[in-house]
Amino acid sequence: MDNFIWDKDRQSRTGVAEAIFCSHKSDQDLQAIIGFNLEQGNRVLLTRLSEQQWLLLPSELQDQLDYDKSSLTAMLNVELTITDGSLAPCEHVCIVTAGTSDLAIAKEAQRTLAFSGYQAPIFSDVGVAGLWRLMDKIDTIRQYKIIIALAGMEAALFSVLAGLVRAPIIAVPTSVGYGVSAGGKTALDSALASCSPGIMTVNIDNGFGAANAAIKIINQFS
Amino acid sequence: MDNFIWDKDRQSRTGVAEAIFCSHKSDQDLQAIIGFNLEQGNRVLLTRLSEQQWLLLPSELQDQLDYDKSSLTAMLNVELTITDGSLAPCEHVCIVTAGTSDLAIAKEAQRTLAFSGYQAPIFSDVGVAGLWRLMDKIDTIRQYKIIIALAGMEAALFSVLAGLVRAPIIAVPTSVGYGVSAGGKTALDSALASCSPGIMTVNIDNGFGAANAAIKIINQFS
Amino acid sequence: MDNFIWDKDRQSRTGVAEAIFCSHKSDQDLQAIIGFNLEQGNRVLLTRLSEQQWLLLPSELQDQLDYDKSSLTAMLNVELTITDGSLAPCEHVCIVTAGTSDLAIAKEAQRTLAFSGYQAPIFSDVGVAGLWRLMDKIDTIRQYKIIIALAGMEAALFSVLAGLVRAPIIAVPTSVGYGVSAGGKTALDSALASCSPGIMTVNIDNGFGAANAAIKIINQFS
Amino acid sequence: MDNFIWDKDRQSRTGVAEAIFCSHKSDQDLQAIIGFNLEQGNRVLLTRLSEQQWLLLPSELQDQLDYDKSSLTAMLNVELTITDGSLAPCEHVCIVTAGTSDLAIAKEAQRTLAFSGYQAPIFSDVGVAGLWRLMDKIDTIRQYKIIIALAGMEAALFSVLAGLVRAPIIAVPTSVGYGVSAGGKTALDSALASCSPGIMTVNIDNGFGAANAAIKIINQFS
Amino acid sequence: MDNFIWDKDRQSRTGVAEAIFCSHKSDQDLQAIIGFNLEQGNRVLLTRLSEQQWLLLPSELQDQLDYDKSSLTAMLNVELTITDGSLAPCEHVCIVTAGTSDLAIAKEAQRTLAFSGYQAPIFSDVGVAGLWRLMDKIDTIRQYKIIIALAGMEAALFSVLAGLVRAPIIAVPTSVGYGVSAGGKTALDSALASCSPGIMTVNIDNGFGAANAAIKIINQFS
Amino acid sequence: MDNFIWDKDRQSRTGVAEAIFCSHKSDQDLQAIIGFNLEQGNRVLLTRLSEQQWLLLPSELQDQLDYDKSSLTAMLNVELTITDGSLAPCEHVCIVTAGTSDLAIAKEAQRTLAFSGYQAPIFSDVGVAGLWRLMDKIDTIRQYKIIIALAGMEAALFSVLAGLVRAPIIAVPTSVGYGVSAGGKTALDSALASCSPGIMTVNIDNGFGAANAAIKIINQFS
Amino acid sequence: MDNFIWDKDRQSRTGVAEAIFCSHKSDQDLQAIIGFNLEQGNRVLLTRLSEQQWLLLPSELQDQLDYDKSSLTAMLNVELTITDGSLAPCEHVCIVTAGTSDLAIAKEAQRTLAFSGYQAPIFSDVGVAGLWRLMDKIDTIRQYKIIIALAGMEAALFSVLAGLVRAPIIAVPTSVGYGVSAGGKTALDSALASCSPGIMTVNIDNGFGAANAAIKIINQFS
Amino acid sequence: MDNFIWDKDRQSRTGVAEAIFCSHKSDQDLQAIIGFNLEQGNRVLLTRLSEQQWLLLPSELQDQLDYDKSSLTAMLNVELTITDGSLAPCEHVCIVTAGTSDLAIAKEAQRTLAFSGYQAPIFSDVGVAGLWRLMDKIDTIRQYKIIIALAGMEAALFSVLAGLVRAPIIAVPTSVGYGVSAGGKTALDSALASCSPGIMTVNIDNGFGAANAAIKIINQFS
Repeated sequence: MDNFIWDKDRQSRTGVAEAIFCSHKSDQDLQAIIGFNLEQGNRVLLTRLSEQQWLLLPSELQDQLDYDKSSLTAMLNVELTITDGSLAPCEHVCIVTAGTSDLAIAKEAQRTLAFSGYQAPIFSDVGVAGLWRLMDKIDTIRQYKIIIALAGMEAALFSVLAGLVRAPIIAVPTSVGYGVSAGGKTALDSALASCSPGIMTVNIDNGFGAANAAIKIINQFS
Repeated sequence: MDNFIWDKDRQSRTGVAEAIFCSHKSDQDLQAIIGFNLEQGNRVLLTRLSEQQWLLLPSELQDQLDYDKSSLTAMLNVELTITDGSLAPCEHVCIVTAGTSDLAIAKEAQRTLAFSGYQAPIFSDVGVAGLWRLMDKIDTIRQYKIIIALAGMEAALFSVLAGLVRAPIIAVPTSVGYGVSAGGKTALDSALASCSPGIMTVNIDNGFGAANAAIKIINQFS
Repeated sequence: MDNFIWDKDRQSRTGVAEAIFCSHKSDQDLQAIIGFNLEQGNRVLLTRLSEQQWLLLPSELQDQLDYDKSSLTAMLNVELTITDGSLAPCEHVCIVTAGTSDLAIAKEAQRTLAFSGYQAPIFSDVGVAGLWRLMDKIDTIRQYKIIIALAGMEAALFSVLAGLVRAPIIAVPTSVGYGVSAGGKTALDSALASCSPGIMTVNIDNGFGAANAAIKIINQFS
Repeated sequence: MDNFIWDKDRQSRTGVAEAIFCSHKSDQDLQAIIGFNLEQGNRVLLTRLSEQQWLLLPSELQDQLDYDKSSLTAMLNVELTITDGSLAPCEHVCIVTAGTSDLAIAKEAQRTLAFSGYQAPIFSDVGVAGLWRLMDKIDTIRQYKIIIALAGMEAALFSVLAGLVRAPIIAVPTSVGYGVSAGGKTALDSALASCSPGIMTVNIDNGFGAANAAIKIINQFS
Repeated sequence: MDNFIWDKDRQSRTGVAEAIFCSHKSDQDLQAIIGFNLEQGNRVLLTRLSEQQWLLLPSELQDQLDYDKSSLTAMLNVELTITDGSLAPCEHVCIVTAGTSDLAIAKEAQRTLAFSGYQAPIFSDVGVAGLWRLMDKIDTIRQYKIIIALAGMEAALFSVLAGLVRAPIIAVPTSVGYGVSAGGKTALDSALASCSPGIMTVNIDNGFGAANAAIKIINQFS
Repeated sequence: MDNFIWDKDRQSRTGVAEAIFCSHKSDQDLQAIIGFNLEQGNRVLLTRLSEQQWLLLPSELQDQLDYDKSSLTAMLNVELTITDGSLAPCEHVCIVTAGTSDLAIAKEAQRTLAFSGYQAPIFSDVGVAGLWRLMDKIDTIRQYKIIIALAGMEAALFSVLAGLVRAPIIAVPTSVGYGVSAGGKTALDSALASCSPGIMTVNIDNGFGAANAAIKIINQFS
Repeated sequence: MDNFIWDKDRQSRTGVAEAIFCSHKSDQDLQAIIGFNLEQGNRVLLTRLSEQQWLLLPSELQDQLDYDKSSLTAMLNVELTITDGSLAPCEHVCIVTAGTSDLAIAKEAQRTLAFSGYQAPIFSDVGVAGLWRLMDKIDTIRQYKIIIALAGMEAALFSVLAGLVRAPIIAVPTSVGYGVSAGGKTALDSALASCSPGIMTVNIDNGFGAANAAIKIINQFS
Repeated sequence: MDNFIWDKDRQSRTGVAEAIFCSHKSDQDLQAIIGFNLEQGNRVLLTRLSEQQWLLLPSELQDQLDYDKSSLTAMLNVELTITDGSLAPCEHVCIVTAGTSDLAIAKEAQRTLAFSGYQAPIFSDVGVAGLWRLMDKIDTIRQYKIIIALAGMEAALFSVLAGLVRAPIIAVPTSVGYGVSAGGKTALDSALASCSPGIMTVNIDNGFGAANAAIKIINQFS
């Protein structure tokens, strides 16, 4: 493993473990990194593992990975019970999406939380075009201490939500949209420029980062 | 008047009269254009007449103009009763602003409507950070057939409003904000990318254009 | 249907029914949403349903959908007579395109109007490079109360048209072009910055939004 | 007070009180808003109150305001002891800046925290060009549960810091820089794209927003 | 003259003489360059000489310069008859502007042409919002072999004009406008993306460059 | 042919015939347009006809078209002798490229000129990294009255060439490059901002437009 | 070889030999250029030779090329010993990468150096999220006179490294990342705006350029 | 000095001393920093010290500073002989500018070099519009081991120069220009995208950074 250095004490140093970002890695390097961690018995989260990359892995590595095609995440050496829903619900953090189209990224956040032992529910499709959908669920949402919110297009959900709750909002702008909102730049700027104070933002489509931020907050205050 | 051609039949051809856009015009050209229209007895609206340009006009021209410093508009040969509030209220169009900071542009829209004989009320400071402010007034707002909405920053007001009313929304993104929202680009893209269908947009800070669009709709359907 | 909430009163609340935006939705979610609406007997419009998504739907769902490959729209539980041309022509709105390349988006607008019961004609290929083509049809176009205009590249059509007619123009900038006009940004900015007042704009390639705006105007004034 | 609606229950609803954003407001509106709050006895924070706006306020209003020229903030009806350093230190949050040039925004954050009763220290000028400056103070910094970090230019501080501590980082990109970093866009994108997970970002130069986010976190977990 | 090298054979080599671009030059350098050319008896055109720079020149230099404040151009060692209108009209090139606001740049082009001995007329304020204004003059405009056209905002004039005449169009996008057209980018992209073939573009507000291009064409073909 | 209107007098009105821009056109529309022109015996140039569009045309239409895969152009009803090199050389215009990678666009220009009867030579690969390559050919290049120059990346060729010759330069920025020059924006801005006066620019990769501009100049002066 | 001119004295004139940039070249032109150089016995480096282009080359050309699929480089007429590691190590320059994902571009730099006879080691995956990884190797890295550093995302490595060593840093921003860092613009601006003086930058993903710059420095000082 | 930490070993650690970047610093902080260094007897370079900041310094501090208004640099505790030209010429590095307008930034580089003891000559106004100006001096320029080149607008000088010399080029794009080249972005991208390999770039207008990079190279190889 010349090309890769495992940051084994990142968990203790920062509160969140190193994860493998798979984009732009060659198939050989990816295989070597997974093999190394398998051998070492490291518990590892992989993100942005494309279906094409996944299909080119040797089947003996595939067998060891819990791969989720929708969120492009995989886990190595993780007891599967954690990720199939049997984890005890967590009162700290919930995930809210403006639309069904945001679900892939919502699941990246959910699985990153699950990897660290937090079972966060998703409240999906509560965008502000039909405000009653959000209002119907707002009392439940208010019970969580941190809200990870996802929205694409103009992402008005962030501002409305932040004006209604006490919880800090970690906004994840998504690349859902077309024309001026293609790529997620409008949703990002909307989060940053919100008239409702207290919104914090991560990169476009960065469900992983939002989950880690939430975990760091929980770590510090529990 | 070599440098300027008065489009005298624009009113009959398009339903809205030509207005004088004062930016980038030299002081000499501006004076000549106003003088020409004064002489001809033309009823004229001037927009974006900066305070500096206004102060450099000869006092005999100043005396003929109804100048409003906040909206940078002036009117020539217009009975002042129209613009001081004695116009009969119009049921067709109202103006809604997210914040007090949007008022200069709101007044540009209001005075453009007044110039054409429509007295439109302004509902100010109903941005979504405190949703109750909008909800308090939503039933009144719903009584108007067209809504001109103004918002800067992330402009979430456009989407929320459009999801609550039957009226078409003419969105005026404003340049209120800083950082990523400086200049109004985020508010503009927010209007264009809204998840609530039926929003139409004009240029940033273009209260004049929004008013003209409303007038054209009213013209066609009355 | 955990991931999706049907906004069933959107029609009565805003005058336009909810539509299903298919981009970024997983095949499973899409299938579930269509199945739900089929079961409920909801009359639904689907937009941006790519040919690839369409081909992956089960044939029993395909059979229930009136899919149009050029505009990427589909309708569920809609009497087909509406969309095959037998609808009575509507005097309220017409669609005008600068070029033949704009037709896919023009059809998205046309089918969205048809879904709501309005049969709008398309006047195609009247861009200003040959001004006589527009002039030949301008008297017919003038008979409509609202004009939905589509243009890509530099979109000069919007300004010329707005200077010639009393109707409000709902401009749909299209992504037709290359180099600086690739993606539709130049056409969009051209619509927003037009020297002809009274143009309102929607997002790039948003024929659906333009049609909904027209429907809201007609609703309010009929 | 027609143009302004006081969101009096924002504190109880969201955990942070409404503040007055002074940019783009006319001098008349500003004076009216301050007068209203003075009369009501409301405890209010004003942000982005430019020195020019401040100088145009009547002296009887100036006398009631605790104005800080460097951070462009003012407080109304706030006991001055809070803001002159006599507040008990808070163990929850500290402020870290890459350079001396970031201090104006750091003070906006500090005063916003002080307004809510939290006395946060500033660790200034610990940018990574001389890594030892950060290392010298890292053990002290690690004692805080939340870190508000400010940096302009390329903002490498955010990533280095996030890799060294357990605390969540609220990054405030500043507009310090020139050429490609003028305006703060490079610092912002650097925060968003960081290779160190767990960084959350607010708008460029938004010390106010970062402080409010920190307050919301503290509120939820104390 | 250490800091400046006069390209004395540029006229013979390229057909257009070197001009002095005054922006960003220090007052000392500017004075030295003008003094050098005065001494040498060089016939020189100065562009973008701001009023502030002009006012700081020694009066003995001012006396030798024919300075035009509106176009920010000056001429040294040029017989004044050329620039005060007594030059014989030229059948080769005319200048057309969309609005009165474009005149400053139109004059930069006109004076650059005059410096080389060509007297070009300006047809002002023929923008397409009132198409009849252009149509009224089109037959006269058609008599010129080259058209320099200026427009800001969305610059639809370029496309309409190019579709009506045989002459090549040299488009000068101007920075007239606000919002999305502030700075001239929309007008520039409009020229580049025009649906009418045969339009050539120069930099925003570059009347000087357009005139030089026209002169080079005339040089080559006369 | 409902969707398409042939601008049959464009040649006489503007000096250049209408061409068919094939991008974004549906296969059905494309086939109908070609069929119409075949039937009418119109001599037509098609541009941006992708290889995929070409392959989907019925073979009876393919047989009538002179298609060039490298430049994506095709000609209908044009005697093939014109395009295979037997046309008499034209002394008016030559084509110069910075690199071999610019040849596809150079050929679009060359074939557009050939379509109008002008046989223009291409001087390829004379970019300024090895200045001697340009200097070796500069005397030959100087014999042409108009130069169409193509360059991608930083496009320094435009400025160097314009400083060496009397001919006007029609610059065609190409999308050759990667990183900051991907898409051609750097080459375009380089052409527009050149320190050598007299350069005129067309859209990125617009060999067709450059050729048409040259034809219009030749038309006017011959 | 009409379309290509070999700059045979570039090595002696500038210190680095001409290389063949393969992007945008047609398969025919590429084949002709390689054939020409093969015939002439020229020692040549090819860059950005895509796998698709490689596969379309005739096998007799493939056999003569040392192609590396990961870096998309190939060498012609180069003794293979140079590129397979047997070259004597060079004390002048080393290559440092922030992550494993940067390796493709690192190899482009490494092979460009090898082509000129310099064997440079790669220190991979020392990004600042785990600062100890860099610190572990910093003493070794300090032994090199020039450092080529590669980083994507926010590229904080450049600033940290430049603050720790005496060597000049040639930064290669890479396109590794997504959202705001997709395409490499954030990494590029980070290099340019660094608070650590003495960083020099090349284009995004331009390992070839960085290696050539290093070679030019070594040439000048050895 | 709470707000400022002097990185006193930066010289020994990186080969270049810390400098004071004055932008965005408050007048109080600036005065404190200068006072501290004066007291400590530190030899210090200040950059981007605006004339307004300079004028607000107490005269006792002004007296200690060697301030240069054109380059906005000042030196503290530096023997004036170094900066007034009596330093022995250095054979390592020369400075080349495209135009007289680039001189302010050229002087920032020159004075930064002088601060470290290197006397570098400036060859001014050798831009490529008149290639002979560069050719006249190229043999002298070739005698320097490193070239710092400055250019604004389209910055073609970088590519031409790099193709003519063996020295590595450190390019400083300047903000000289208007329209698309305003701010220096076009010059920057031109440097990055150059077809001539071996160019390295620093931030726009960053003469200080270019000088430091040159010093680091000289340090390493002398």
